[in-house]
Amino acid sequence: MKNVVIIGGGFAGIRAAKALASASVSVFLVDRKNHHTFQPLLYQVATATLSPADIAQPIRAILQKQKNTCVIMDEVTSIDIEEKKVHLKNEGALPYDYLVLATGATHSYFGHNEWEQFAPGLKTIEDALRLRGRIFSVFEEAERDMVRTNTHKPLNFVVIGGGPTGVEVAGALADTCHVYLRDEFRHIDTTKARVILLEAMSKVLGPYPDDLSSSAFQQLNECGVEIMINTQVTDVQESYVMTSAGKIDAAVIIWAAGVQASPLGKDLGFPVDRRGCVMVDQFLNPPAHPEIFICGDLAHFEQDGKQLPGVAQTAMQMGVHAAEVIKQDLESKPRKPFKFFDKGDMATIGRMRAVANIRWPFNAHAKGFAAWVSWLIIHIFFLIGLRNRFLVFWQWIWTFSSCQRGAQLITDNEVLCKHEAQLASKK
Amino acid sequence: MKNVVIIGGGFAGIRAAKALASASVSVFLVDRKNHHTFQPLLYQVATATLSPADIAQPIRAILQKQKNTCVIMDEVTSIDIEEKKVHLKNEGALPYDYLVLATGATHSYFGHNEWEQFAPGLKTIEDALRLRGRIFSVFEEAERDMVRTNTHKPLNFVVIGGGPTGVEVAGALADTCHVYLRDEFRHIDTTKARVILLEAMSKVLGPYPDDLSSSAFQQLNECGVEIMINTQVTDVQESYVMTSAGKIDAAVIIWAAGVQASPLGKDLGFPVDRRGCVMVDQFLNPPAHPEIFICGDLAHFEQDGKQLPGVAQTAMQMGVHAAEVIKQDLESKPRKPFKFFDKGDMATIGRMRAVANIRWPFNAHAKGFAAWVSWLIIHIFFLIGLRNRFLVFWQWIWTFSSCQRGAQLITDNEVLCKHEAQLASKK
Repeated sequence: MKNVVIIGGGFAGIRAAKALASASVSVFLVDRKNHHTFQPLLYQVATATLSPADIAQPIRAILQKQKNTCVIMDEVTSIDIEEKKVHLKNEGALPYDYLVLATGATHSYFGHNEWEQFAPGLKTIEDALRLRGRIFSVFEEAERDMVRTNTHKPLNFVVIGGGPTGVEVAGALADTCHVYLRDEFRHIDTTKARVILLEAMSKVLGPYPDDLSSSAFQQLNECGVEIMINTQVTDVQESYVMTSAGKIDAAVIIWAAGVQASPLGKDLGFPVDRRGCVMVDQFLNPPAHPEIFICGDLAHFEQDGKQLPGVAQTAMQMGVHAAEVIKQDLESKPRKPFKFFDKGDMATIGRMRAVANIRWPFNAHAKGFAAWVSWLIIHIFFLIGLRNRFLVFWQWIWTFSSCQRGAQLITDNEVLCKHEAQLASKK
Repeated sequence: MKNVVIIGGGFAGIRAAKALASASVSVFLVDRKNHHTFQPLLYQVATATLSPADIAQPIRAILQKQKNTCVIMDEVTSIDIEEKKVHLKNEGALPYDYLVLATGATHSYFGHNEWEQFAPGLKTIEDALRLRGRIFSVFEEAERDMVRTNTHKPLNFVVIGGGPTGVEVAGALADTCHVYLRDEFRHIDTTKARVILLEAMSKVLGPYPDDLSSSAFQQLNECGVEIMINTQVTDVQESYVMTSAGKIDAAVIIWAAGVQASPLGKDLGFPVDRRGCVMVDQFLNPPAHPEIFICGDLAHFEQDGKQLPGVAQTAMQMGVHAAEVIKQDLESKPRKPFKFFDKGDMATIGRMRAVANIRWPFNAHAKGFAAWVSWLIIHIFFLIGLRNRFLVFWQWIWTFSSCQRGAQLITDNEVLCKHEAQLASKK
């Protein structure tokens, strides 16, 4: 039986594994983490609507019924593409006949990696918990400062990057300050907190059609986000962001400006674009390696002259396609080329607001409440597992109707330690 | 208006604050954490049935409608009981007319604090997450070892202490290994994992009536827990526990053997018992300080010649009583003495099993499924907040009917770091 090794348990890797469930191959899925993360909802963990386990599932549990699949929690140290072996940190070598690389992307600080400590991004559950701790610690500290000195530092939340992630985070943060926390503090007024969204270009949601971009701009304004377009970030420090429009004080800074592919493609000597994505052919193979498939954010695939966006639906379709091609090979059928089927894009803007560029089953631009309802339905549908769908559904109903957040816990160890160090240093 | 300062946001502190909602006093509730934790369900977070936010609620959110109450997240550095001032790490001094001390208890290692690193207990959300990471990492490591070397270390989980906490943890762990994880691994057999419960005395659930203790013993056996009674622990190391019956290899060790009160009582010079609990009079006051109330696990209160148990119902009743006495003072009414109203005790043993010593509304001993159903209903009822009741209810239905765990995430930073260090050192 042939070995298929899949590296990465994100959208692409999980879909590839699932599509191979009934194929007569041995599947090995390798991931550093034990869980698959539904990244599009990470911002809701960071802003305390959902718990980590609502949007993350153990990879083993997802694939437990699939008897031909073995899940390994380990880290890839190197891949020998001549010998067809994946070397793991702890496991020795895993030989493969087919290899699916789906290691995704991480943040890009455009050569300023020192900004990361002050402006973390949102790619993992740990990122989200760390951010949740930072956000809610800011309010606690301000309340204490008010009791003691009758003044507090500015409650400024700065989001860098006006793409879908930045827009969703900024909207959720504005609701957190202006709606959800309103009644919880006695000495500070959380509705005075500022959420500032910085975008270097002239519009938010850059790749969206113009009418949706301007609608997003307007809806962000409505929920209290201050948007600064045409504003370049030149420096990031612990308590401020320096921009082309001047210095902005910041209590929390969130990075949503750039991504770069995992370094694997470059390390293997494949041709990559400037973000490290591997240039793939119509079957998702890198040059001269028909047994290797590159899927998800790691792949650079052009259709109609444009690179496909690094979103969940691209990754899922690529993962399934890689599995299909492997099955075509096994059945000695001709390989079918990959074609991306674009169902559209959407971004929420806080509670009750969103924009949606719908491409399927019909073409339409939706804005405001209607777009938000479609967003809710689609995201519930794509969550893995009935348990999580139901949990998330209930928590959304609860949050949006009661205006209370359930998961507003400050538990992250790093944040707690830092917090206590701050307390100690002030003493 | 008089100031009431409450230290500690556990069962006693929260109940005291709530009972003062309509009193004409200013209430300050101080806690190091921003959340109240429903400690009786921590073991379900550690064994991945529930998420932290399901059993923890922001203290601010619980008390947000209570306009006379201010919540402060800070640490108490000292209390000046002559000047009637609480000194906080960051806040300066908080003057009080009445002081409610409800700082609870922590683990006691009987003079062997060096055991703590190898055998953590279960008192906080962080404890539970750390333990969850350890438990599930053990299986991942064993699966990897099997792939590489065709052998793995013994999957032994050792629980030290056969009181209610130890019994509940052991039962939940046995179910985790023998039921929930059964189908998730390809190379290891999780049903071969051993859960060993060590108890120094001659029976588990010591304070329970004999028939319930022996029923618990039998039910633990049925769900696959190996119980060693009359077994003293003499040493705890990373990979084993040394006992009066010999050495036991252990992959994970959990401490459920002893508690000691927070050091506050002793620090203030009050008379304390050997576990540091403050001896209080009939109004819950320490000697000569009618303005100070000691509540919950910190208090040593005797009724009918026996010390009240350190459980949630004791703490809640004490918290309410302290508030009632303060209100009696304000209205110049005579103080009423505290009387504990015992509704009974119960402990679950995995899924579908429990023992219950019911005292109210009637006297009864329940065992097995009936006891388990009563346990479910009572714990759902006492969870704070409709949101959490519903979430927990759903997750219990899901877990017990599907035999899958939802929150099986390895996310704790410390565990991940340690895990990666282990990987690195093996390389």
